[in-house]
Amino acid sequence: MASSTGALFRVTTFGESHGGAVGCVVDGCPPQLELSEDDIQHDLDRRRPGQSRLVTQRDETDTVEIVSGVDAGHTLGSPIAMLVRNKDQRSGAYDHMAELYRPSHADWTTEAKYGTRAVAGGGRASARETIGRVAAAAVARKLLAQQCGIEVLAWVESVHGISATVDADTVTLDDVERDPTRCPDPEAAALITEAIENARRDGDSLGGVVSCVARSVPPGLGEPVFDKLEADLARAVMSLPATKGFEIGSGFGATAMTGREHNDPFVPGPDGPRTTTNNSGGVQGGITNGETVLLRAAFKPTATIASPQQTVTRDGEATTLEAKGRHDPCVLPRAVPMVEAAVLLVLADHWLRQRAIAPG
Amino acid sequence: MASSTGALFRVTTFGESHGGAVGCVVDGCPPQLELSEDDIQHDLDRRRPGQSRLVTQRDETDTVEIVSGVDAGHTLGSPIAMLVRNKDQRSGAYDHMAELYRPSHADWTTEAKYGTRAVAGGGRASARETIGRVAAAAVARKLLAQQCGIEVLAWVESVHGISATVDADTVTLDDVERDPTRCPDPEAAALITEAIENARRDGDSLGGVVSCVARSVPPGLGEPVFDKLEADLARAVMSLPATKGFEIGSGFGATAMTGREHNDPFVPGPDGPRTTTNNSGGVQGGITNGETVLLRAAFKPTATIASPQQTVTRDGEATTLEAKGRHDPCVLPRAVPMVEAAVLLVLADHWLRQRAIAPG
Amino acid sequence: MASSTGALFRVTTFGESHGGAVGCVVDGCPPQLELSEDDIQHDLDRRRPGQSRLVTQRDETDTVEIVSGVDAGHTLGSPIAMLVRNKDQRSGAYDHMAELYRPSHADWTTEAKYGTRAVAGGGRASARETIGRVAAAAVARKLLAQQCGIEVLAWVESVHGISATVDADTVTLDDVERDPTRCPDPEAAALITEAIENARRDGDSLGGVVSCVARSVPPGLGEPVFDKLEADLARAVMSLPATKGFEIGSGFGATAMTGREHNDPFVPGPDGPRTTTNNSGGVQGGITNGETVLLRAAFKPTATIASPQQTVTRDGEATTLEAKGRHDPCVLPRAVPMVEAAVLLVLADHWLRQRAIAPG
Amino acid sequence: MASSTGALFRVTTFGESHGGAVGCVVDGCPPQLELSEDDIQHDLDRRRPGQSRLVTQRDETDTVEIVSGVDAGHTLGSPIAMLVRNKDQRSGAYDHMAELYRPSHADWTTEAKYGTRAVAGGGRASARETIGRVAAAAVARKLLAQQCGIEVLAWVESVHGISATVDADTVTLDDVERDPTRCPDPEAAALITEAIENARRDGDSLGGVVSCVARSVPPGLGEPVFDKLEADLARAVMSLPATKGFEIGSGFGATAMTGREHNDPFVPGPDGPRTTTNNSGGVQGGITNGETVLLRAAFKPTATIASPQQTVTRDGEATTLEAKGRHDPCVLPRAVPMVEAAVLLVLADHWLRQRAIAPG
Repeated sequence: MASSTGALFRVTTFGESHGGAVGCVVDGCPPQLELSEDDIQHDLDRRRPGQSRLVTQRDETDTVEIVSGVDAGHTLGSPIAMLVRNKDQRSGAYDHMAELYRPSHADWTTEAKYGTRAVAGGGRASARETIGRVAAAAVARKLLAQQCGIEVLAWVESVHGISATVDADTVTLDDVERDPTRCPDPEAAALITEAIENARRDGDSLGGVVSCVARSVPPGLGEPVFDKLEADLARAVMSLPATKGFEIGSGFGATAMTGREHNDPFVPGPDGPRTTTNNSGGVQGGITNGETVLLRAAFKPTATIASPQQTVTRDGEATTLEAKGRHDPCVLPRAVPMVEAAVLLVLADHWLRQRAIAPG
Repeated sequence: MASSTGALFRVTTFGESHGGAVGCVVDGCPPQLELSEDDIQHDLDRRRPGQSRLVTQRDETDTVEIVSGVDAGHTLGSPIAMLVRNKDQRSGAYDHMAELYRPSHADWTTEAKYGTRAVAGGGRASARETIGRVAAAAVARKLLAQQCGIEVLAWVESVHGISATVDADTVTLDDVERDPTRCPDPEAAALITEAIENARRDGDSLGGVVSCVARSVPPGLGEPVFDKLEADLARAVMSLPATKGFEIGSGFGATAMTGREHNDPFVPGPDGPRTTTNNSGGVQGGITNGETVLLRAAFKPTATIASPQQTVTRDGEATTLEAKGRHDPCVLPRAVPMVEAAVLLVLADHWLRQRAIAPG
Repeated sequence: MASSTGALFRVTTFGESHGGAVGCVVDGCPPQLELSEDDIQHDLDRRRPGQSRLVTQRDETDTVEIVSGVDAGHTLGSPIAMLVRNKDQRSGAYDHMAELYRPSHADWTTEAKYGTRAVAGGGRASARETIGRVAAAAVARKLLAQQCGIEVLAWVESVHGISATVDADTVTLDDVERDPTRCPDPEAAALITEAIENARRDGDSLGGVVSCVARSVPPGLGEPVFDKLEADLARAVMSLPATKGFEIGSGFGATAMTGREHNDPFVPGPDGPRTTTNNSGGVQGGITNGETVLLRAAFKPTATIASPQQTVTRDGEATTLEAKGRHDPCVLPRAVPMVEAAVLLVLADHWLRQRAIAPG
Repeated sequence: MASSTGALFRVTTFGESHGGAVGCVVDGCPPQLELSEDDIQHDLDRRRPGQSRLVTQRDETDTVEIVSGVDAGHTLGSPIAMLVRNKDQRSGAYDHMAELYRPSHADWTTEAKYGTRAVAGGGRASARETIGRVAAAAVARKLLAQQCGIEVLAWVESVHGISATVDADTVTLDDVERDPTRCPDPEAAALITEAIENARRDGDSLGGVVSCVARSVPPGLGEPVFDKLEADLARAVMSLPATKGFEIGSGFGATAMTGREHNDPFVPGPDGPRTTTNNSGGVQGGITNGETVLLRAAFKPTATIASPQQTVTRDGEATTLEAKGRHDPCVLPRAVPMVEAAVLLVLADHWLRQRAIAPG
């Protein structure tokens, strides 16, 4: 369970950051979808380190192999196992970290839980685990595009308080991919680039907000109680490394509004009611209403910084963690495909669940 | 699945707001815990409408019956079914609503999903569904108190922008319960009371923020990937009616901090490392680190207001929803036990999961 | 989990044999099915003790109440909770059993597992638990009849070696219900009646075999690996009290056949291939092939007998269990609706699962 | 779900018989167990084709790679992914089968379910899928041996009606492995060898019975209702390819016994009650009682035979399947490690489940 998610579109990820490979198994994908390694690789490349000078330079090509579940370019309905070999197993680079707990990493909590941890790298807590999610989500993307036309798109909304101005209804993938920051507002992107460069020089790191929309979502997805769509989206987003907050629609801003301001008026539409505003963020009572699903995820500044930090050894002695090697001053650009992956997996699962009980 | 949650401490709720009864089944509770109907009733009474003039006046005593799973005052290890009869089945009060969709309620989305809905009340989308969660969580509270000493406490942090000053480390249940607002800061409580009264008179409604702590949580609870503790907490909180946002620890505030500011330094402690700050909110990499778990939930203003609203009939005609009857201008005081319930159910489940694999 | 089954048509049962009530929650039933308490009661009445002199005389009417999930005679898509109050709580009759372990009952194993057990009756191990299953299965029966025309029918195939001659293709519900034995072969039924009467007089008990068919099952239900239809059927049947064996199609008889004898030849049919024999029992590789599903369940003789038996007290002392009160010499007639229930729940679940991924 | 099993010791298998690889992911294995590829390989070698002239000659070494979850010879608590590359991808050998349905194989049912199937080999329905189960079960074997001393051992009980005489209490792994038949009774083994050789020459195939014991099982494993140990064992065994029947303890033989004969008398033992007979097969009411768990599985004769057979093409035309190439006249010797795997996975899961709620 720990490494699986979804009720019908069920994804299990595996792999330590410095073991033999990382990957995933997608169980429950419908048969007869077109699917190739290129489809997967495209999203993996967006997630990969070393794409620009803004992100971590770990040297991985992250080349995916589809091991099962696909024959003659189409899914079989059987589990789709996918594998990405780890190349950059420089565990020596982590030797000095094996005997102490890096602050705000999962080193101590992993040992508290398991009594052990992978000596090299972050084990399962590494962002490298998200390779499996992104690969699985590329399958979900194909499913949703082919069966119901849903489109999921995320972008960097802010970094360290520098906020973009983005029209969530019209922003495109090209707008997002144009700049290495994945911030589609050019002015904000320039400021963000400068802030990230400064943080790198300063040995520090920055957090920010990723926004995400799901468009053309049919009404009726999500469940009314524990599996509300926004609940499953919150879980999926908050299970990404470094997330500290989640909002749907109006989010925390709703708490300063009155009901009269916040309620979304209904008007007749061609295929059922539409709303004139979207404070609901596309969900009402846990179920999609046909409007665009809109959410935001807060990412903390990366825990790896290039400055000495106060910490404790495995033997319980106070010590100082000296900074060594490269660090990634801002995960936000790479977080964009991760947030999309989180959203895609939830939507694919609820899409299949709704197929099972749909009236008519 | 739709109405169940938890892997080992598994809770299923049932019941429409105006059907025969609401309730829950708790499957997986360990045997030999002391448990009585009084334990359950105490938390249900905190959730109940009509406790003060600040909350909805629906006339329900919400008296719980334990139907199974308890014998001679102790749990048997078998499913604990609990039932609360609905008394206030005034479905006539809803007649005028049966043929239109109330804005920002789940009327339309429920019909989009199921092709039908309970004609009276909000069906499963009603806050009345949370009776089952609160009853189940009262069992979780006993389990956690008896087996590991965890204490969960929530309070109203803000209403409509009026924010309380609360010391999360020292605030007590008595502090919270002293005022009908469940805001433990007397000055803020007075302002909030006034704001709620004004909203009632104005036929409007207000949202706000509930904060919640879990104290004395042992390190090691939570899983490193999809079932991170913060992910499961986010899902649980975001599955409560009217929630729009979730934060753990530093939350969205983290996005304006640098890594150097945000990282929580480790210092030696008697039972393992402790941190000198708690931006992590008690979890690192999805697993508790022994510090207090701290989270916040954003509640939108209640959708039911006493003002005319633009909407659409089931036949797709534009119409106006005329306000009738009582409305609840602010759900926040009653949301406090709901948030506690969400947190308790997650912690009980992860507590049992950790027992299964704990080293040593 | 312990008391739940099914992935999409999810059933949780609850209730001790001598507690307040027994019942179930069905979560995941599609909306807009016609459903009334009469539908449920009909199957419960077939399961009920005291229907004839052949079965146990416990005085229960087993009247069901639908507590939720149904409105205006139709399912809502929300959890259907059903309750049957226990009337015959003569716990005094069990006083002498509280301090010892009845042989081949679950008294000792329940205590080994939980450290405690319900002092009266068999707790969850009682056949009374199957009330919840039969009630849930009555909903499954409606679903399957309405959505795909599946018919499930069981009968008594043998008791204590007295075997019936039954044509599985043509036997009807009327044939089965005509005789209190639920054996549709009148000659065998007469002999079985005599054997049961003799066993009763002798204070002894008898076992036997229940056969069950599912007719008009569409091809494609079941999964190729762990959730093979025959695997889920085996689990469902073997989770009924007192079962010791399960067969599908040729069963153990297959082990004395050769491949040439056993393989079912295909011939063209109007809607796909048909087979000229049915050694497969309607499933090939875990998936239905459009032929009748045919299975058998072995029930041991009831553990409660009216003879002194050697056993052990809770304090570990050797003792003798003296027989008192009534006993049920043969559970087979009442096992018939239980086996149907087991099969119905599995088929309903796989029906919904197939809807989620069905091609085209 | 289709390819996953277990609640806490959760196993997912993947891979088509003629795709890139087969394998599994084990999620939920406790940390700090010793585990090496040799441990896995040992059980895989027992399952492998080509071990003797009695079994299929497909040329595979079935060499396992542990891809994740193990570091420095010990489990980490994270998912253990294991991979076995397919070498013998002679899909040409299956060309003539692509356009027709092999009788009593899963060709037609797979197409009925998915609208497609892997053109080479049996896809997921191949016995090759059990590589993943056997690999996962080797981990379960280590867990059970290390944490509670459980030993699981299976053997060939009969082939085509030739039955062995075996003392289930004393038979050892050496006794079983001594003969290629895996029948520990030398006289029966000789007759079985002859029967298999005859079947091979005759182009025919034979079925039989595998028996399995689990020794030193602590009392208390299994759940009282749907997840009875015997129910989960039945599901696991009946999900193996070619199984048609399952028995626990007295099995179908119980149906000819009376309660007085069948009940297992209790006597005092050093650690709780023991029984003087074991008709219960080690489980009472779904829960282990501390006696040896004893079960039997019926395997049909292999569907692949070297004789012409009547069948139907994908276009619905009657045709004859001409026999070509090698066939495996009896799967029983290789079924022995498969049955052990089924039992080991169930016991490992229930062992962890019991740890979560164990009293005291």
